[in-house]
Amino acid sequence: MKSDVSILIAALGLCFLRASAAEPAPAEALYRGPDPFRQIAREQWLAESPHAFAVRDKNPQAPVHVLVISKNPVPTMLQASDDLLGEMLGLAKRVAEKEGIARDGFRVVINTHPKGGQSVYHLHMHVLGGRQMRWPSG
Amino acid sequence: MKSDVSILIAALGLCFLRASAAEPAPAEALYRGPDPFRQIAREQWLAESPHAFAVRDKNPQAPVHVLVISKNPVPTMLQASDDLLGEMLGLAKRVAEKEGIARDGFRVVINTHPKGGQSVYHLHMHVLGGRQMRWPSG
Repeated sequence: MKSDVSILIAALGLCFLRASAAEPAPAEALYRGPDPFRQIAREQWLAESPHAFAVRDKNPQAPVHVLVISKNPVPTMLQASDDLLGEMLGLAKRVAEKEGIARDGFRVVINTHPKGGQSVYHLHMHVLGGRQMRWPSG
Repeated sequence: MKSDVSILIAALGLCFLRASAAEPAPAEALYRGPDPFRQIAREQWLAESPHAFAVRDKNPQAPVHVLVISKNPVPTMLQASDDLLGEMLGLAKRVAEKEGIARDGFRVVINTHPKGGQSVYHLHMHVLGGRQMRWPSG
């Protein structure tokens, strides 16, 4: 009987250890991925604000497709202050005006974590225009 | 000769008048459309911040589809201050946490003017999640 209890305790312990090992905070693991935005040369910037800059997307999904990227590598909008997010949308508006898509129309998209479609864990916003954007938005 | 000049001036004047009449700022006309967001009862609010509130979209495009709407009827993000935009994204984050889609992922979409897909000219942001969001975003 005593050995049965020992085995049970040992088994429960193993289950607990396995569960801990199998569930590292998934967000943390995602955040350790490569960050190609850190390699962008300043010469490629289209515009900037104190804490963000704008560059063309390398895989454009519309005639105008610009990324507004935080200068500090915050992983997602969840870690960003309201001030930074407001400043980045302000820059997105300036980019839309500069690219001539403000009047006809444009879409701003912010993807967070895998189901949102985020691929680079360095805060960025997509500014898309120059064609009719469809609905739903992906 | 004098009458030729008069005719020229009159013709130029007419052209100018025609151009003015034919090109009212299209944005201004759009902004005069109906605003169903003003009729939303406070009981339907899921959450609020000082200058914005959140409600479910009546035509959901995902299991979770919430709108973050400005309390003051600003027509588009182009007329909004960075402070208001930051506050609204802050509320969008809170909504994502509350609806349980922050960890798996979600998408925030802001449509501006017709080519962006804006249908109601009262500033709002879409918060979408609960399924895999596709790319491109419409």
